[in-house]
Formats: sequence, C-alpha cells, structure tokens
Amino acid sequence: MHIPMAGRKRIIIEHVRPQVNGGQFPIKRVPGESVDVQAHIFSDGHDRVAAEILYREKGSKRWNSSHLRHTGNDEWGGRFVVEKMGGYEYTVRGWVDHFLTWQQDLKKKVAAGQDVAVDLQIGADLLSSSARRAKGHDADALKGYLSRLTAHAQTLEGQQAAVQVAMDPALTALVGRWPDSTLRVKYPQTFEVLVDRPEAVFGAWYEFFPRSCGPKGKHGTFKDCEKMLEEVAEMGFDVVYLPPIHPIGVTHRKGKNNATTCTPGDPGSPWAIGGKEGGHTSIHPELGTPADFRRLIQKARQLGLEIAMDIAFQCSPDHPYVKEHPEWFRWRPDGTVQYAENPPKKYEDILPINFETPQWRPLWDELKNVVLHWVHEGVRIFRVDNPHTKPFNFWQWLIGQVRTDYPDVIFLAEAFTRPKVMKRLAKLGFDQSYTYFTWRNTKYEVQQYIKELTTTNMAEYFRPNFWPNTPDILPEFLQYGGRAAFIIRLVMAATLSSAYGIYGPAYELFVADAVEGKEEYKDSEKYEIHHWDRSHRGSLRPLIQRINTIRRQTPSLQRIRNIRFYETDNEMILCYGKMNEDKSDITVTVVSLDPNFRQSGFITLPLEEMEIDPHRPYLMHDLISSDKYIWQGERNYIELNPETMPAHILKVQKKMRRENDFDYFM
Amino acid sequence: MHIPMAGRKRIIIEHVRPQVNGGQFPIKRVPGESVDVQAHIFSDGHDRVAAEILYREKGSKRWNSSHLRHTGNDEWGGRFVVEKMGGYEYTVRGWVDHFLTWQQDLKKKVAAGQDVAVDLQIGADLLSSSARRAKGHDADALKGYLSRLTAHAQTLEGQQAAVQVAMDPALTALVGRWPDSTLRVKYPQTFEVLVDRPEAVFGAWYEFFPRSCGPKGKHGTFKDCEKMLEEVAEMGFDVVYLPPIHPIGVTHRKGKNNATTCTPGDPGSPWAIGGKEGGHTSIHPELGTPADFRRLIQKARQLGLEIAMDIAFQCSPDHPYVKEHPEWFRWRPDGTVQYAENPPKKYEDILPINFETPQWRPLWDELKNVVLHWVHEGVRIFRVDNPHTKPFNFWQWLIGQVRTDYPDVIFLAEAFTRPKVMKRLAKLGFDQSYTYFTWRNTKYEVQQYIKELTTTNMAEYFRPNFWPNTPDILPEFLQYGGRAAFIIRLVMAATLSSAYGIYGPAYELFVADAVEGKEEYKDSEKYEIHHWDRSHRGSLRPLIQRINTIRRQTPSLQRIRNIRFYETDNEMILCYGKMNEDKSDITVTVVSLDPNFRQSGFITLPLEEMEIDPHRPYLMHDLISSDKYIWQGERNYIELNPETMPAHILKVQKKMRRENDFDYFM
Repeated sequence: MHIPMAGRKRIIIEHVRPQVNGGQFPIKRVPGESVDVQAHIFSDGHDRVAAEILYREKGSKRWNSSHLRHTGNDEWGGRFVVEKMGGYEYTVRGWVDHFLTWQQDLKKKVAAGQDVAVDLQIGADLLSSSARRAKGHDADALKGYLSRLTAHAQTLEGQQAAVQVAMDPALTALVGRWPDSTLRVKYPQTFEVLVDRPEAVFGAWYEFFPRSCGPKGKHGTFKDCEKMLEEVAEMGFDVVYLPPIHPIGVTHRKGKNNATTCTPGDPGSPWAIGGKEGGHTSIHPELGTPADFRRLIQKARQLGLEIAMDIAFQCSPDHPYVKEHPEWFRWRPDGTVQYAENPPKKYEDILPINFETPQWRPLWDELKNVVLHWVHEGVRIFRVDNPHTKPFNFWQWLIGQVRTDYPDVIFLAEAFTRPKVMKRLAKLGFDQSYTYFTWRNTKYEVQQYIKELTTTNMAEYFRPNFWPNTPDILPEFLQYGGRAAFIIRLVMAATLSSAYGIYGPAYELFVADAVEGKEEYKDSEKYEIHHWDRSHRGSLRPLIQRINTIRRQTPSLQRIRNIRFYETDNEMILCYGKMNEDKSDITVTVVSLDPNFRQSGFITLPLEEMEIDPHRPYLMHDLISSDKYIWQGERNYIELNPETMPAHILKVQKKMRRENDFDYFM
Repeated sequence: MHIPMAGRKRIIIEHVRPQVNGGQFPIKRVPGESVDVQAHIFSDGHDRVAAEILYREKGSKRWNSSHLRHTGNDEWGGRFVVEKMGGYEYTVRGWVDHFLTWQQDLKKKVAAGQDVAVDLQIGADLLSSSARRAKGHDADALKGYLSRLTAHAQTLEGQQAAVQVAMDPALTALVGRWPDSTLRVKYPQTFEVLVDRPEAVFGAWYEFFPRSCGPKGKHGTFKDCEKMLEEVAEMGFDVVYLPPIHPIGVTHRKGKNNATTCTPGDPGSPWAIGGKEGGHTSIHPELGTPADFRRLIQKARQLGLEIAMDIAFQCSPDHPYVKEHPEWFRWRPDGTVQYAENPPKKYEDILPINFETPQWRPLWDELKNVVLHWVHEGVRIFRVDNPHTKPFNFWQWLIGQVRTDYPDVIFLAEAFTRPKVMKRLAKLGFDQSYTYFTWRNTKYEVQQYIKELTTTNMAEYFRPNFWPNTPDILPEFLQYGGRAAFIIRLVMAATLSSAYGIYGPAYELFVADAVEGKEEYKDSEKYEIHHWDRSHRGSLRPLIQRINTIRRQTPSLQRIRNIRFYETDNEMILCYGKMNEDKSDITVTVVSLDPNFRQSGFITLPLEEMEIDPHRPYLMHDLISSDKYIWQGERNYIELNPETMPAHILKVQKKMRRENDFDYFM
C-alpha cells in the first residue's frame, strides 16, 4: 500500500525541532518536563493543513498524539510532557485537511453571496466518509450532522441552515478526531528524549575533602565524615561530592602548594590515584575500609544526602595497572613511562592512560568495571574529572553501558575547556556539566551566558551545574571581594541555576588567599590536610542553609529554562525572574554585582506576563531577610548594601480583593 | 580492520557545511565556482588536529583532497572548485597529528630551557614511521631529515641543531603529505553538489507574447517572431521566454481585462491550455506549425539566444485530457468538472489537475512526456508556471527524471508565494526562482533581502532571477514612478542579480496603466493581442542594450554571492559593489531609489578590501554614460538626477605609477 500512495502525498515536513546533531543524540528531560516541538509543515496549493506530534515511551508500539498549531509562516508548534524516567521518542505527522479546506472555502463563498448548493453536497460526501471512519458515539453524531446538513439544501433558507451546521465548532472537532489516514505524511526520522531522574536538574552540591574532617593534626576518616555529613545536611544540601578516595601514589608525590618534592607526612594529591594498596576500586587505608565507606553511604542516605564520587581515569606511577598493563601507557625511548604534561608544565605524579593503545578493548572494559564496582557499592552520581582529555567515543560507550542497567546513574562532566568540547560531552551522555559561570561576573556576561544556556539548542542537552569555586579555582572576584563577594556568587549560583555546588568549608569561611597572580588556592587542600574552624561565627553557614531551604520550598527555582532577565537602570544590579508554568510561584531575584559599594536603582518587571494588575499594589516577600515590600506598577526602587545583604530573593504575592471589599495578599 | 580501530579514533567532526536539509538535497554551483566548506573538528586533550576536505566527481572512486585550516574555536574552513557540469560529492576527514603535536611541545620545552634529548628520540621515531609510509623522493628526503635529526643529539649543541632540523617548515610539509591513515576519521555522510551549466547563474531574460508580434490587427505568428528575436538579440538578451504556445480553450474563455465572457475574436489566455487542436504537446495553429517552431528555435540559436518555454500543468475545459483522462480531474456531485478557484475567486477557463488521483502514476508519466516532447524539439529552458500548486514530490521526481538524460535542462520556478514553499522548490531541483525583488523598493528592504539570498544557507541552493515586471505584475513603484522608475528597477535587477528578466515591450515602453487599485496591467496582453510601437523614440531599448552589454563584458556582474553593500548617507541612494576573485574587476553600482527628485550624498567604499591606495586618486569609469570621475579616499560625493540618469555603474580603475614617474590609470 505504501508505494502506490507515495505520489499522492502532498505534505512536506522540514526542520523538526528540538534535535541534537540531526537526531544523533537525544534531548534531555526529567519527569514532568515538557518538550516543545516545532516543525515547518506545508503543502502545495491553498488547502488547509493539519498536523500533530507523535510520541511514545521507547519500546511502546502505540503512538500518542499531541496537537500542533500553526504559528505563522508555515511554522507549527506544540508540546508533550514526559512522565516517566527512561526514554521517549517523538516525530511529527501532517496531512491535507479536506474538511477544514471545505469549511474555509464555504465561508468565503457564503460571504461573497455565491450559491453553495453543490458545495454543500461536497461537504455531505466529506461528512459521510468521516462517519464511515468514525466509531461508536462519534459515528452516530456525524450521521446526525450529515442528515441535518442535507435536510433542506434545496432552498435558500435551507442552505443558510446547512451552512450553520457546517460551521459548528463541535463538528470541526468531531471530524478532526477521525482524519483520513491514507494520505498522512510522517516525518521519516524519530528523535529521542532521555528522561533522567529529577536530581539531574535540581540539586545543591557540597564538595569537601574527607581527610580534612578529622581532629586537628590527624588524617580524617570516613567515621569523621559522618559528623560532617550532618552539618552538610543541616545546610540543606542534596549531594555530597568527595574527591578521589583511593590509595595515593608515593613516586613523585607532590608536596604542599604543588611542590615537586614532598616531605615526609605530605598526603599527596588524591588525584594521583593508585599505590601498592590498590587502584581505582580500592580505598585509601587512612580513610577507612570498604565497610566504612558503605556505612558512610548509608549515613548520607539517612540524612537525605547522596554521595557523588570522583572518577579520574589517570594513574600514579605506583598504580597496579602500570605493572599489570604496561600496554595501557606510553613508554618513552629511554624506557621510562610518559607522565602527564602540558608543556612546559609537567605532572610527574600522574600518568595519563594511552587511549590509542591497540589494547583499548580490555582497557575500556576495565574502566567500565571500575564504575560498576562503585555502582554496586551504592554510588549513583559520578563527577568525572577532565573527561575532555579522554576520547569522546569512550565516554559515549561507557555512559551508554552503565545507563543500560542503571538508568538512575548521573554523570557530571568536569570539563572547563573549549565550548564545542564541553557541548559534545553533554551531547554524548553527560547529564550535567561544569560551566563558565565561575568566570562570568558582569551583568552583560551573565545575561549572555545564561541566555546561551537556556534559549539556544544547548538548553536541550546541556545541563549546567554552577560552581562559584572548586578546589582548583578561586576566581579573582572571590579573591578581592571579601565576604560580600561570596554571598553574591552564592545567591547567583543558587538562583540562576537549578543545580549548583560549592567547595567548602573554604566557601562558607570565605577563604580568599590565592597563589600570587593565579586563580588557585594558596595552601590548597589538594596537597595538604586542613583543619577548618567550621563553627566560626562569621561563617556563611546560616545564609547557605536559608538559601537551600528557599530552593527546596520554591518550585520556580528548581528549573533553569524558565529564567528571564529584567531591566535595571544600574549596570551593577542584576535582576531576573523565574515562574512555574501556572504562574502560582513567581520569584524575582535581585543581586548587586558590587561587593564594595551600596548600589541602588529601579527595576522593571513584566507585570502582564506575571499576571499582576498594574493598577493595584502587590507584595514582594524577601525570602532571605523575611522583609516585605509593597510595590506598585512595573518600576520599583531597590537598594542593596554589601555590608548587610547584597541580594533579595523576592516572592511575588499578588493583591487580591475579598468579597467584603478588603484587600489581602495571597 | 574498521571495528577494532574504532575505539582508538579520537577525532570528532560535527556541523559540516554547506548542506541542505541535512544532506537530503544537493547544493548548487556552475563550473568554476568554489564550494566553501566548514566543519567543527576537534579531539580530546591537547593534541594538534589536522583535517582536509575530500571531494570528487560523482561516480569517481578516487577522492581529491583540499586543505582545511583551523579558523579558531575548533572551526575549520577550506574550499574546492568544481570544474565540470554534473555532480560532485564532498565530505571531511580529520586526524590527530602526532608530528605537529610533537613539534609544538618541543618548541615550548626548548623555550623553557628543558632537556629535550628524549623528545628528540621520540621525534626520530615519528620521522622514521613517516619515512616508511612515504614513497619515492619524499621517502629519501625524510630519511635525510631523520639522519640530521639524530646526528648529534647527545650534545647540547647537537640538540640545538636537531631542534632547528625538527622545526624546518619544509619538513612539516613533507611529513604532512604522508599522514598516518590508520586513525583518520571520515565524516560518515557525503554531501552533493549539483553543477549546472553557466546559464543557470548568468543570463538576461526577455518575455514577450508571440501573438503580439504580427502586423497591426493580426494574430502574430512564429514567422513574425523571427524579426522580434533580432531586436531582442540586439538588446543583448540571452534568453527569450515565451508564454504558452499551445491551443487555447474556448469554453469559458476569458475576454479583455479578464472578463468572464468573451466576445468573438478574443484570443483567450494562453494559460487556458488545450482545445480540439490538441493539448500540451500541440502548437496553437494561429502561431504556426511544429516546423515553424523548430525554425524559431534555430533562428534564436543563430542569434545567440535560447528559447525558454512555459510549463503550465493545467487544462482548459476543452483539453483532450478531460475526455481521455477524466480520472485526472475532480468531478463535482452535480456531474460538472471542478474548475480552478481560490474562493471567492473563480477561474472557470482553467481546470486544475487532481494530483491526489489514484491514477497518479500514468499522470506523472504523461506530464514527464510533455516536458520530454519539448526537450526533443530542442528546448532546454523551462519556466514553470505556479509550481507551488502541484505536489513537491512530483517536481522532485520530474526534474530528477529529465536531468538524468538531459543535464543541461534548466527549470525556473514561477512561484510568488510563501518563503518556505519557495525555498523547498529550489531545494528539490528548480535551478532558478522568481523572487520578492519585484516588491523590494526601499534601501532597507533591498539590503535585507539580498543579504538573505546571498549570505544565508539560501545562497547554496536558491538562485534568484530578478523580474521588475511580469505579465501578471505591474508593481506600484512602476505605476507611479514614470520612466525613471523603469530605469531604476532595470539597473537594480541587472546588477543586483546575475540573472534577471523583463516582460517587454511593455517594459521598454514604460507602460504603467494598471487595473485600479491592483498591481495588474490594464488591457493585459494575457487576454488580448497588442500591437506595440517598438520603435518609439523614448523607448528604453538603447539603455537596455547598454546594460546587457556591460553585464556581458563585466565578470563581477555575472555572479550574485559576491555582492557587498556600501554605506551611503542618504536613504534614497543605494550603493553596492561586486568584485571577481582576484579583484581585477571591481564594479560599484550607485542607484537612486527616488524616481522623482534629484538625490545626492556621500558614499563610503572599503578601499582596503578593494586594494585601492587611500592616498592616491583612482578613476571611476561610469559604464552607462562613459563619464569618468577622479576620486580619492573612501568617501566621495554622488549626485543622481531622475530626469537624466538615476544610476551609475562605476568600474574602478586604480591609479598606477609609471616608471618615468607620470601617473596613469589602469
């Protein structure tokens, strides 16, 4: 049947969106999110076109359909919602709608006073075809319309009545439910949606070094970490991310401040993985035993926290792989093994894996087993160290393999590198990505970057996780801005993005000492054990707790694509809003970008979009300070003081009129 | 070999351009044009990448390669030139270049004063692999470099000499010629180029009604047309396009000015095709015989002209198809055949073909035979009437079929309709398209539209043919602007686009009488025979001849993608330039958009791009008037008078210094 039909099919479908690399990669969603589908759909001639989205869970045979609406210029738009974790697929279908065409022409002819007797007969034929296709009650209803249409078509009065029947919107809907399927055109390609669990979009992350959790002067253990977990949970975080917990090499171990030689007692960098005690599936003995780690995972779970592990596929010179699998490394003509370097820099404590090895197959399998080992231990989130220095095809394969059996595993790409490289990692399967947020400070920079993340095709596959600092990066803004700078960047990270993280306790204690001229921590925890004064009275802990609580209680802050920037008349004041779909939850965040001076100005809100009556006051409830402000109209004054609080997170409470004519805010 | 390699291949290639609908359709070129290829290419890590375009004539097994250069941000660009008519295909290939990576690292290490003894050994290994892959003289040369590299590498002085050898650009080029092919990555898709004959891009078209060529009061014949062809050839046109030459129906024949009833002697619209004398393969008896038509084609050829025929797939009620193939039409419940309508408008003299007929297969074959009939008669250009009212798939099939045996056939789409519809027709195979130029009059409109045509993806597949008027369209600008308006639009059409056409003699006689309130000719030639006073002394004929001569003598005007707009300080003055690739031919066209008043202002030229010395005068030679102006610097004054000549086509003649120190212009 298909071939003989082909020549009669007149619909063209082009430019179906969203899609990533022509459909090579899936778009990403979490349950409850919608997919906005767009396509160019048209036919020859003047006939009316109808179209729909087809979508289904992967593996299902039956398509669901969702209406596509013509939005002008042969562009059509519609949406569907993904409900379950796993995979969905979608495509688009269109057809020439002879009934709509007939209705449209009939209307014009009647308006021009033409005789429509023959047209009504044509319509009757269309209706009876429709009735033959329809089933049950619809078939009966169509037959009813048909008899009313043909009842009196011979007289002019009868024609008028018949035209009334023909134009009935209920009839249009009824016919629309039983389209002629023979000449429908389905776009030849289907596109995929990867539906992750909600934590892939929403979560507050906290990174700390387990070895720094012990009593002063001692190497911390997993047992010490249990206390730390309680504090992190109390601050309202969702995910705890631990740097590598494996044995650390001794050969070429780095000393304090990245010194090329270490002194006795220096613990080395946790990223120099592997020693005589084992490699990527082993645990550093000073931290504890595998059982201790399992208990830590349990403890976290009890506290509502999830532990994210570091995956750093590189080896210290003492890693068991070096002896067991010399073919996985590069060897130099002098017989020494090639260490990591980015000339003229040398990283002698780390050996890169040679992914061009002819023995890549067993290598890939081994690295997959590393991940699966920790999955079996209960880990479901991995922060992958420098994925951009290992082949893209490897990650695509690895993530695909792990996801097949464990669809709840989340991978975060720690790639601070060139844009197309970061995008490719997100496309091929990383659920979240580190971003350039860390270096975006001015209003223009922030707005441009967020718009790129949320309004370009990146929004379909690249999920940002905003980090104001990491153990590797102490940005200049934090170095020079004092405590206020830490507040500013915290509020921005936590409200611009639905996923964010900080490296603490350095963050809440606003540690700002950097290596001279660099964006690196002085006395970095990467090379030594710290003992933090976590109960310091100036700590940002209460504020962090407040902000994480706000995030959890405020649905609009749990998404990122819903962000809109609002105009302010001061370059140092950034203002943006987020709303949930039914506009029951609207937040407006106002942040001063100036950690030094008081800043003030007017901000302009889109009242109509917010469904706020411009003629009535509305209440702005600052969720940070609990202060309330009565505002009116689109322009209102804001003043922000870095010495007290350089930010507001304002919840809009619209003014409502009671029946007894007193106003109240809801 | 392929599968076991796959895991080691580290190159990612994305976003290969140009391509149309993901490669579904070819891009278009004519011989001698280049294809600018771009792609995003990158690898993991810090290794250097190299890449190339692969291209070949379709059917050839051997790829040619052309260098791709990194243009920043992981974007690569290069080009190749298509030499022959027919089809080409292209794709992109990339690889990690270990030799370039080694050179780059070596350089940094030497600069940092590090010992590079082991690095030189590594380089020697790379060079010997390279020498093993190379052949002939290259292999010997590589061995020579190898021995010089390793000669003294033990001493510090020797190292310095070896580094010199390693950095030799000649060595880089030599190694580049013999890359390691094992880990190269070819983009999995190839893209096609359709290479038409040059006339698909460059040509001046002239449309006239053969029946109006006779002596006054008589129906013109093909014999009368022979005289007309001489005049058209004298005016410098390349293509003569004739409205349909087939028998015209008598049933519901339209009278003068589209009257619904005709009077005896009314000739009817040539687009109401078919009568008792025959259909689409027959010739209207009053025009002549098939032999006369063949003679006309011969005559045209002798004059350097080519005849383009009209393809209008629709029928008068008297067309033989209606009786022979009633299944190709729609029949109404009252037993009458469905005429063309766009309610409330009716076109009772025309029946549309029902392309949804189950008998579409024989219908398609018959319509193909119509085209082939005229191809066999010697026609190689077809102007297709309203292609957007017949199915897209039909045209794609038809054009593909015809092109297989007759690659020199050119199809022009007469679709004045919505943007995506016009684009689709161009994508699926129409070589040229009518455009919105007809209604683009202001500076902003013209610039925006030309930029869309020449700088967006449209430039790859949509070839514009600019018509200031057609028998269907007398635009308001021509209705109100008088003779100057006709000059303005002529110059614009002929210099903005490499292909353009006019409907004459109405054009050169600046006929401006329109149906009240419409953009249609009053007393249109579509419904009556005209006798034009072709030797009218005010005729634009000499100007048209001049402009077509200029076009033929000026290579830069024979392309469209080379257009650039230049700044003017007067909204009524439009200025644009075209250059050929080596900048030996540069024209600057200046047109006043005001047919009523004198306009003046300064124009600003990009002297650096034009390779004009800003400190020396240069000559501007107006090819229309033959006037010459000496200009200096980027800003020069222009004055345009609609009563004399509202346009300049200026050829840039750069000033040169003779050896004896006198200046002259070349």
